[in-house]
Amino acid sequence: MIEDLQGATLAFDRKNNFLVILDQTLLPRAVKLLHLSAPSDIFEAIQSLRVRGAPAIGVAAAISMAVCAKNILRPDKENYFTEIEGIKSYLASSRPTAQNLFWALERMMSVAEKHKSESIQFINEKLADEAEKILDEDVSVCRRIGEHGAVLIKESMNILTHCNAGRLAAVRYGTALAPIYVAAEQGRKVHVYADETRPLLQGARLTAYELVAAGIDTTVICDNMAASLMAEGRVDMVITGADRIAANLDAANKIGTFQLGIMADYFGIPFYVAAPCSTFDPSCKKGEDIVIEMRSGDEIAGTWLKSEGKKPDFSYNPAFDVTPARLIDGIITEDGIIYPKKK
Amino acid sequence: MIEDLQGATLAFDRKNNFLVILDQTLLPRAVKLLHLSAPSDIFEAIQSLRVRGAPAIGVAAAISMAVCAKNILRPDKENYFTEIEGIKSYLASSRPTAQNLFWALERMMSVAEKHKSESIQFINEKLADEAEKILDEDVSVCRRIGEHGAVLIKESMNILTHCNAGRLAAVRYGTALAPIYVAAEQGRKVHVYADETRPLLQGARLTAYELVAAGIDTTVICDNMAASLMAEGRVDMVITGADRIAANLDAANKIGTFQLGIMADYFGIPFYVAAPCSTFDPSCKKGEDIVIEMRSGDEIAGTWLKSEGKKPDFSYNPAFDVTPARLIDGIITEDGIIYPKKK
Repeated sequence: MIEDLQGATLAFDRKNNFLVILDQTLLPRAVKLLHLSAPSDIFEAIQSLRVRGAPAIGVAAAISMAVCAKNILRPDKENYFTEIEGIKSYLASSRPTAQNLFWALERMMSVAEKHKSESIQFINEKLADEAEKILDEDVSVCRRIGEHGAVLIKESMNILTHCNAGRLAAVRYGTALAPIYVAAEQGRKVHVYADETRPLLQGARLTAYELVAAGIDTTVICDNMAASLMAEGRVDMVITGADRIAANLDAANKIGTFQLGIMADYFGIPFYVAAPCSTFDPSCKKGEDIVIEMRSGDEIAGTWLKSEGKKPDFSYNPAFDVTPARLIDGIITEDGIIYPKKK
Repeated sequence: MIEDLQGATLAFDRKNNFLVILDQTLLPRAVKLLHLSAPSDIFEAIQSLRVRGAPAIGVAAAISMAVCAKNILRPDKENYFTEIEGIKSYLASSRPTAQNLFWALERMMSVAEKHKSESIQFINEKLADEAEKILDEDVSVCRRIGEHGAVLIKESMNILTHCNAGRLAAVRYGTALAPIYVAAEQGRKVHVYADETRPLLQGARLTAYELVAAGIDTTVICDNMAASLMAEGRVDMVITGADRIAANLDAANKIGTFQLGIMADYFGIPFYVAAPCSTFDPSCKKGEDIVIEMRSGDEIAGTWLKSEGKKPDFSYNPAFDVTPARLIDGIITEDGIIYPKKK
């Protein structure tokens, strides 16, 4: 059993056939690994954000396909393909917005299809190989995002980020935080402002946790403080991740990203999105086509949850919003930077 | 002893010489009145936001001056004036931003000065009269703000507000919410989106509490959701309060108001500020001259508060920000509406 992820966020325990994840709902208070193999446990882990972040969800889904395929009990091929199709659809329904989830599941499925004429055991090995490949690729893709983005980061810059698009949102490095890690490796001092990111506080809990652990100066602010900071000239650049990018380069990301784009535009501060190419969804022509996950109002209700009697409505809880391409100065990918404003 | 404020937020128990306030830190979970007379208890109640909201702070300070003056022990007039000057300075130092605090204390002091040649007992009566007058004026001023502002509110409008500038921020009616209460009285249906207002959740706790109690449809949203709502065409108007308004009409209000101004401008949604004339500070030429209170980072730290080891920085916690006049469509006062954009 894998008992230490050695700085990674998730792993494939191929020998024992487990998806291994760090339970992110417990951070920063506790560091606990989960070994998952049942489809329902994996579904629950994605839906309740034990593993989250678009790239990490993609890798977790790929490993899950390999793990679950190997656990299929009835070894006749027709049933096998019905079952893996079922697992794929089930996992795809865990969260609707992150493109990387669908991308990874499709890629795994196409490997199975490609080897349809081979034995089930052979297909399972190919699926496990592909899951390992997707995991390794995520590390190198994020590293390359970091190298392309680090060029933008000058000595002593103050960078504002939202939610968590760091190593905890991928396997290592992350997306939005990758340029910061690489710039720090290259010897530059960087100071990060992390939006706390209500309602689930991924910024205050996860971004702060991983940056502090990496020795990077980090100030947590409330989501309503960015304009004040920017007006004081204390933000040199904004970098966020993305969960899905439409063909016109509108980018969906954690709720609250859009307002940072509007504010950065107002103050003339560069606004960057960092994401692997697997985040692009050419089937969405524009931002309006991206499905936005609505989550439970209980995440917002706080002190009212246990109140009796008449309560306000908490039902408006979109997990994401869409920042239009015209507000995005650059999209940092593993293959280089795209400049939507200059289109 | 006053045991029921009958819908008001604070009262002057003149007979028993108490400032009576509803402890707002306990809402919506508990409704508890506090009877205060010691300067240190009043100072603590203002500083820790048991009573808050610029108009309410002003009225509470006026009542406090009357209560504390009557409790001065040494009845020679020189000591009396030294002591009330001391009480005034002490209360003025409880919070630095709300103009109404200084305005009310100055007004009370000028009443004492005016009657300097009279007996201490006479001056105390005049101070108590003035405190009652300030309290009554607050009710009528807020009512008039409501009447001027209600003209702007059409049937079935969706109005976004931030923090609490309702009856809990004044004696009755409030400022930003007064037009909503009056429009509702006049038979129009209004739906309010209340920003939860981190870190202390005055929107989720107080605005939601008083609007739901008044039977007005209220949806609580996180502070990072407004852009998404606005993009969906679900906000017809923004109304907030103000804590101090500079001579050039830049307006200080709860942290997060500025970003609403920027977003409303981006989406072409009318942005109004509602405040009594006592909020205007002609000695501040522009927004940059307004002193912004910085509060403890512990208010933001949440789950990290009890963590051991290295922590992120939480020290950036301004209680207010300044929305420049160019983003404000109208300032609704008791004497009518001022239009900064048309200056």
